[in-house]
Amino acid sequence: MNIQCPLPTIHRETIRLGHGSGGEMTQQLLSTYIQPLFNNAWIDQAHDSATLPWGADRLVFTTDSFVITPLFFPGGDIGKLAIYGTVNDLAMGAAEAKFLSCSLILEEGLPLETLKKVLQSMAVAAEETGVKLVTGDTKVVERGKGDGIYINTSGVGILMDGQPIAPSRIRSGDQILLSGDIGRHGIAVMASREGLDFESALNSDCAPLNSAVSALIRGGVTLHCLRDLTRGGLATALVELAETSGRAIEVEESQIPVGESVQGACEMLGLDPLYVANEGRFVAFVPEESVDLASSILRETQVGSSCAKIGRVTDKTDAQVTLRNNLGCDRLLQRLPGEQLPRIC
Amino acid sequence: MNIQCPLPTIHRETIRLGHGSGGEMTQQLLSTYIQPLFNNAWIDQAHDSATLPWGADRLVFTTDSFVITPLFFPGGDIGKLAIYGTVNDLAMGAAEAKFLSCSLILEEGLPLETLKKVLQSMAVAAEETGVKLVTGDTKVVERGKGDGIYINTSGVGILMDGQPIAPSRIRSGDQILLSGDIGRHGIAVMASREGLDFESALNSDCAPLNSAVSALIRGGVTLHCLRDLTRGGLATALVELAETSGRAIEVEESQIPVGESVQGACEMLGLDPLYVANEGRFVAFVPEESVDLASSILRETQVGSSCAKIGRVTDKTDAQVTLRNNLGCDRLLQRLPGEQLPRIC
Repeated sequence: MNIQCPLPTIHRETIRLGHGSGGEMTQQLLSTYIQPLFNNAWIDQAHDSATLPWGADRLVFTTDSFVITPLFFPGGDIGKLAIYGTVNDLAMGAAEAKFLSCSLILEEGLPLETLKKVLQSMAVAAEETGVKLVTGDTKVVERGKGDGIYINTSGVGILMDGQPIAPSRIRSGDQILLSGDIGRHGIAVMASREGLDFESALNSDCAPLNSAVSALIRGGVTLHCLRDLTRGGLATALVELAETSGRAIEVEESQIPVGESVQGACEMLGLDPLYVANEGRFVAFVPEESVDLASSILRETQVGSSCAKIGRVTDKTDAQVTLRNNLGCDRLLQRLPGEQLPRIC
Repeated sequence: MNIQCPLPTIHRETIRLGHGSGGEMTQQLLSTYIQPLFNNAWIDQAHDSATLPWGADRLVFTTDSFVITPLFFPGGDIGKLAIYGTVNDLAMGAAEAKFLSCSLILEEGLPLETLKKVLQSMAVAAEETGVKLVTGDTKVVERGKGDGIYINTSGVGILMDGQPIAPSRIRSGDQILLSGDIGRHGIAVMASREGLDFESALNSDCAPLNSAVSALIRGGVTLHCLRDLTRGGLATALVELAETSGRAIEVEESQIPVGESVQGACEMLGLDPLYVANEGRFVAFVPEESVDLASSILRETQVGSSCAKIGRVTDKTDAQVTLRNNLGCDRLLQRLPGEQLPRIC
């Protein structure tokens, strides 16, 4: 008997929103279409930035496009996000952001007043994080071919630490620190987009992470890996790091800080906070002997005041992430499978 | 008597296609909204790239987003353009492109086959120009919020010459060399978009310029300034350089090579080839004593085989560009005023 597959194959042959989720489908897209064509020592670092040889120095280089909707949300806007996002990707490579480029794709009909507000916000964020916007580009697409403003920022930074901080440096026994409570960015953006009104005001966690990272490095903490939690949330970041490093990770659900409003919103909407996007949170992998120092330094920073030790890297090499839940049961974490909340950054 | 302005003011307060033309409206947008917020020594270089201090070296940094429609056109595609465009912007700063980032904004529903073709084309172009794609980002926007694929590439390069080549180095007496015939990219894209059929096949001039620039530098030519001719065509590039350098420029229309098909298409469509986009053409400003050497070196390169001496920088400091036409009459050139052919790159 010859049974025809009832799924419309067209869906498997076109780009879907999930390809931009930062989760499983994004990973498939990268491994199928991009990595085979562009493999080199730097892209293989599988980090948010590439650490490159540059004369006597090392240069860290990264890029990010921002397509968030709405452009303005509680706690931030696309302009702030575009600066912080790239500064943060550099910070996660232990690099101090020095110079940024800015490329705008504007939609015909965008009010100039909106553009002005976004640019002002970018200027404030650049000042705050100490980066200079040095080169740019502006394109305009016809009405209906864009969505107000898309912004790309790319950045070059200089290594703060002697050696790059990267997934390949993760070791068994490393402790995992989470810089603060999770899920606020995703829920704030979604609430704003869908017009949901929660009891307590909920702001995005959108924040620059460079000061916290530089405090850790200056404070003498040995850092093995840093990763900011963006589109796929904490779970996806941990799975990626486990796979890239080939190490197993165990985390304790009870140790992961989730705000009451985020918890409530997630329950109401059927979302898992572990997969909700953040824009000002990161995990740090540090050797056991450094974890208390790291934690006390982080607690003194603005973004790390509620940091928590959430788990550790085990001796196993099955590259799996196990979450021990509040009832003591274990659950294997996967990457975000499809698209949870699109257009979040 | 109080006469009301009949123009709908709304048009003056929103983004129009002309803001992306690379001409007068783009310039107004930059000078009104961007430069006051982001002025620094590097953005003030008013070049397609920024030359930055970096330890003992100097680093050249640039960015470009590509929103061309259609994605495939005679002689090229958006992928090729995205690599060449950024390599060329670096070459115009006398820099050898080393590393590129690639950020994709994909529209839901884009056939994966199309994405694959574009990426393959990028890989071939990267190989050809000797650059490595080392970092990237992928976003997906909902159907109807994009136009298939937008690509941003940013690039870092290393100075080939001892000192940067920039508009500020233009001197009176400099001769102006044009690397080849103009207007082919704009006409080829428009013909393809509008389904126009010209008698003779017309391919875009889309090409990498790095080998030609490196040949000039290796050959010992003193280069004062280089500029590739993109959105606003030859006229806009010359006006920009005259204004940035504060020098007057004179060019001879009879010396500017325009292919027969481009000339024919322009006459038919009421376009001026001086304002039609190019993607593989540049002007070089060289001192009188270097012009013959430069010209003979360029003629040996693939992109410069039909190069021509089209004019010179005069003693005047009125920053104007004068075109002497074939009848011996002078005409002052301006930047492209509005939008001639949108979505050309």
